[in-house]
Amino acid sequence: MTNAATAPIACDTLITAAVVVSQNEARDVLHDAALAVTDGRIAAMGPRAELTARYAPAAILALPEAMVLPGLVNTHTHAAMTLFRGLCDDAPLSVWLHDHIWPAEARLTPEAVRLGTLLACAEMLASGTTCFLDAYLFIDAVADAAEAAGLRAVLGQGVFDIENAGFKTADAALASAAALADRLAGQTLLRPAIFPHAVYTCRQDTLERCAAFARERGTLLSTHAAETVRENENCLAANGARVIPYLHRLGMLGPHTLLAHGVALDAADIALLAETGTAVSHCPKSNMKLASGIAPVHALRQAGVTVGLGTDGAASNNALNLFSEMGTAALLQKVATGDPTALEAGAALDMATRDSARALGWPELGRLEVGGPADLCALDLTRPQLQPCFDPVSDAVYAANGGEVVLTMVAGRVLYRDGAFSTIDYAALRRQFRETASRLIGR
Amino acid sequence: MTNAATAPIACDTLITAAVVVSQNEARDVLHDAALAVTDGRIAAMGPRAELTARYAPAAILALPEAMVLPGLVNTHTHAAMTLFRGLCDDAPLSVWLHDHIWPAEARLTPEAVRLGTLLACAEMLASGTTCFLDAYLFIDAVADAAEAAGLRAVLGQGVFDIENAGFKTADAALASAAALADRLAGQTLLRPAIFPHAVYTCRQDTLERCAAFARERGTLLSTHAAETVRENENCLAANGARVIPYLHRLGMLGPHTLLAHGVALDAADIALLAETGTAVSHCPKSNMKLASGIAPVHALRQAGVTVGLGTDGAASNNALNLFSEMGTAALLQKVATGDPTALEAGAALDMATRDSARALGWPELGRLEVGGPADLCALDLTRPQLQPCFDPVSDAVYAANGGEVVLTMVAGRVLYRDGAFSTIDYAALRRQFRETASRLIGR
Repeated sequence: MTNAATAPIACDTLITAAVVVSQNEARDVLHDAALAVTDGRIAAMGPRAELTARYAPAAILALPEAMVLPGLVNTHTHAAMTLFRGLCDDAPLSVWLHDHIWPAEARLTPEAVRLGTLLACAEMLASGTTCFLDAYLFIDAVADAAEAAGLRAVLGQGVFDIENAGFKTADAALASAAALADRLAGQTLLRPAIFPHAVYTCRQDTLERCAAFARERGTLLSTHAAETVRENENCLAANGARVIPYLHRLGMLGPHTLLAHGVALDAADIALLAETGTAVSHCPKSNMKLASGIAPVHALRQAGVTVGLGTDGAASNNALNLFSEMGTAALLQKVATGDPTALEAGAALDMATRDSARALGWPELGRLEVGGPADLCALDLTRPQLQPCFDPVSDAVYAANGGEVVLTMVAGRVLYRDGAFSTIDYAALRRQFRETASRLIGR
Repeated sequence: MTNAATAPIACDTLITAAVVVSQNEARDVLHDAALAVTDGRIAAMGPRAELTARYAPAAILALPEAMVLPGLVNTHTHAAMTLFRGLCDDAPLSVWLHDHIWPAEARLTPEAVRLGTLLACAEMLASGTTCFLDAYLFIDAVADAAEAAGLRAVLGQGVFDIENAGFKTADAALASAAALADRLAGQTLLRPAIFPHAVYTCRQDTLERCAAFARERGTLLSTHAAETVRENENCLAANGARVIPYLHRLGMLGPHTLLAHGVALDAADIALLAETGTAVSHCPKSNMKLASGIAPVHALRQAGVTVGLGTDGAASNNALNLFSEMGTAALLQKVATGDPTALEAGAALDMATRDSARALGWPELGRLEVGGPADLCALDLTRPQLQPCFDPVSDAVYAANGGEVVLTMVAGRVLYRDGAFSTIDYAALRRQFRETASRLIGR
């Protein structure tokens, strides 16, 4: 007999699903499909019958009523600010910041940041996020939490020229960033980054030193930029240039730079971002809630700028849910441009996956393809809001709310399934988190 | 002994909860509270310990980790359009309507509408909605579905001067509305209404006859109005007036009228709505998705106009989830007005509850108070996105996505609990619904 059956191939996990939205280059959507996972990476992706016959998995994850998507990538958050969720809403930015957030942040401790970040990790896992960029104080505690939870993270050490609970000086913050980069050498899930807070909280030499740090260490450089019209006005008065050209003058723009917000951008700013290959993290719900304005996402994308999605912190959103953020991003561009074809569902999904990954300088994330990381989430397709499922991408962006997530996997490891966390003692965490939050804000 | 213990009072159900957001006149938020329910109404509301001692309930619903809210009220939807969810997104209104929705609607049958509405009822129950205004064809089939599911509904018979799958003429539609009103006499959960589609699809005499019908039958009169700038321009050209003054001229405005959308309103329009006591149904996600514009909700509310919330149909949203709609409404007004204090969380919750109820002419809904209907929903307070719960109202509006709903009750009857429906055979419905949707659109 010439057609001798080949021996089945061993793999760690075989995932079967009703639909796989791959987000690969061709944007293949596979029905009745499977993924073979080995050593945290995708060994094969294709028809269920074929992979079931070909592989001898150590474990099977059968999701016959689920849609599998790449894990979503959050390009801008301050995870530990879950501690301040609902602390102060519906207030002007200055009241919010000066009277509520800063006084509460002054009482932060590394342990509070670790708990807040761990709670944020639970929230992100339960809504399908597998990687996040964090920018905050006590970044070592953030790293501890991300490591314990098993998510991927880009850890942006916050740098200010204002004394804060973390540091008295920018020097100390830069030293901490260097120590973190040393600590993370050889890690596969965690990467260091440097995050000077903004042009209005960092001196010019501090910004330049952060840019030098990123170049020397090969890390991402991220900062808040052009969040409001006023920020541009103040920057023009102080530095003789709007925020984007000022950052350019300091050597801060380029393919390893990610600017959070980018709301108040004019045509010259957009051209400069495109020309330098600088990416933008769009945080629509935060920008709406703080009444900052509407980022010109459609124009940025048309100019070729990479635009990822971010939630910002839970004090200005107030959730860390990228499903909600995707839908909001798409709807907001339509109403802002008056064009219902602007930022279609596929573009919004790209932003939350492939484009967010590129924005973080980690382009193998945000897509499911052979050889790439097995970072994914699965939505329960039996939920009413996902009927009749004519168009899985439309449903993921416009109909899903994130509550449909039944499985989240990072590097081949199931971190969340059906309401339960494999790496987090959630009941204990919740108790400690609530006690800590109450203590911090004196309630 | 003078302090003889009083005998416990019988009641149908005693609900205990961590938090009760009453939405009563004082907006009381009760902690560690209970509700006694008898004959579909609230017999008592107060401290858990007190009510537990005072009542001898036939059943106890213990929700020690839940927040109880009034059931949300959806003031504008076309429930059966769940059949067309994801059929056509990101398209101009004319393409969407002429090339996709109308051809699909031409193939509708009463049975398809019943199935589509029943699926919508499941979706609404699972996201905390207990009452909806529907405007569609085959309104008897809508009534059948709402009755079977056990929701409250205001059933707006659609009236057009365009032949459709339901009717060849407006006369026939009005006759059907009259028959429905007769059928519903004495019903407590279902109410009839009349819904002329819009000024651009109904002749003047048809609109006038609908207004007369509403007056004579004592029903709500609802219509799409001022959804776009173009609708005003066309109305001005055809009738010599913008939409709002034109409706006023026909005697259509007043305290029993609810206008869906109200996007393109000028100051005179707003004044006219306030003066006549006309209510507006705000559908932010639909308005954004179709790029219709941003309704001046903040200005309407400041002028004293009652503004309720609606989801519109699932083909232009694409969900029927009022939690998502509340958050979007608040964020959209902030960014539209440039004022982060506009439409605060409490106002958004009012819109989805008390104000929506008043907009439907059913003011005892949307609030929890003694003597009122026991229509409510409960959110699971253990979810990460609801930590630390400093402010239950903020959390319900800004942090919840609707997926936290663990219980929905209408008139004292539990219709949804922990993913299961008590009145709907959901697995069978889903199968039939998917078959029907595929057949209708030929996929």
